[in-house]
Amino acid sequence: MRPFEEEFQLLNDTLLEMGSLVAQSVRRSVFSLIEKNEDYAHQVLRDESRIDQMEVQIDDCAAGLIVREQPVARDMRFVVVAIKINTDLERMGDLAVNIVERSLGLIKQPPLPEPVNLAEIASVVESMVLNSLDAFVKRDAQIARRILSSDDAVDKLRHEIQRQVVALMQRDPSTVPRALDCLIIARCLERIADHATNIAEDVIFLVQGVDVRHRAALEVA
Amino acid sequence: MRPFEEEFQLLNDTLLEMGSLVAQSVRRSVFSLIEKNEDYAHQVLRDESRIDQMEVQIDDCAAGLIVREQPVARDMRFVVVAIKINTDLERMGDLAVNIVERSLGLIKQPPLPEPVNLAEIASVVESMVLNSLDAFVKRDAQIARRILSSDDAVDKLRHEIQRQVVALMQRDPSTVPRALDCLIIARCLERIADHATNIAEDVIFLVQGVDVRHRAALEVA
Repeated sequence: MRPFEEEFQLLNDTLLEMGSLVAQSVRRSVFSLIEKNEDYAHQVLRDESRIDQMEVQIDDCAAGLIVREQPVARDMRFVVVAIKINTDLERMGDLAVNIVERSLGLIKQPPLPEPVNLAEIASVVESMVLNSLDAFVKRDAQIARRILSSDDAVDKLRHEIQRQVVALMQRDPSTVPRALDCLIIARCLERIADHATNIAEDVIFLVQGVDVRHRAALEVA
Repeated sequence: MRPFEEEFQLLNDTLLEMGSLVAQSVRRSVFSLIEKNEDYAHQVLRDESRIDQMEVQIDDCAAGLIVREQPVARDMRFVVVAIKINTDLERMGDLAVNIVERSLGLIKQPPLPEPVNLAEIASVVESMVLNSLDAFVKRDAQIARRILSSDDAVDKLRHEIQRQVVALMQRDPSTVPRALDCLIIARCLERIADHATNIAEDVIFLVQGVDVRHRAALEVA
């Protein structure tokens, strides 16, 4: 074991622990609505402060590692990526809280005349979150690249939901506030998927040293 | 001048250049709609790839600086903050593009029977973006703290817009698609304000070494 291997392992493990807590919050936020389960919603609210604490710990751990170990090349890349993944995970946690705030309001109201299918988009997004972490643990660029294509599926599902919600609101204006909440939940899920995509891009950068974020921009440059 | 002062200055200047380009895009995205000016909108789309290129350059510059100079303490903090601000600026640029996509559609349609006041929220958000960069350049925690309170004003304005839009859609269902686009623009502006707030928090961390992101979370810990 290299001298600072332990510190890298700690950073890795803390990120994973945070990631699995965030994935759980995303799942619970949507299922609180689908299953009308307020306990799930309150659990998400309780876990938020734990996620926030972990974000601060991970940044401290990464900064300390750089200062003490002065890593170079691939090791340095790992620490920079850890700082970025940390931010993405914390934002996902915030978005799960935003979903729960809408869900808690919706649970108390009568269901829409025509249900909005949030389960499908939620399930794709949840897999993306779990796979992005899996790609990171295994340093697997192939898993990461599959996430980039799932992101298109999420965009498509969100567009379908938007079409359905607009039609519903136009047909029956009394549905506006509830339908709008469903659309906002779908947009939160889309943003969580964007963060999972950011993580996947970071993993590809970590493994292959290739920055895939703005290929097109650089190719025309 | 310290030996690596020049590299720090370059990182600083590139971030500022990117920041002023992003602030301009935010302004143009909203004014393309308010003034029905498609040129502004197309300029935002053109500047996006420049912003994307700058993001990659800044990350490279920051990583190179760490590897070559192995900065410690406050200098190291500066580089970590630069990496985070870079991500926030790029996301703001993306959000300006999202606004423009809606604006280009709205410009072609008849105006709503009752105009949605996007100018006020846009102007608060634009000041927040400019002030967050000013706080960073001047390493001024006081300017940064004022941004944190502007964020509450933005939330309030966005809620007012949401109330107005919901009432409008319920009264006249033919307005639903256009009113929804206005609401989505307001939410994009709110997210840009959130990114400006992130930058302000990073500046406070940089200047005072105090992490204000999750004070409450840590106080109860």
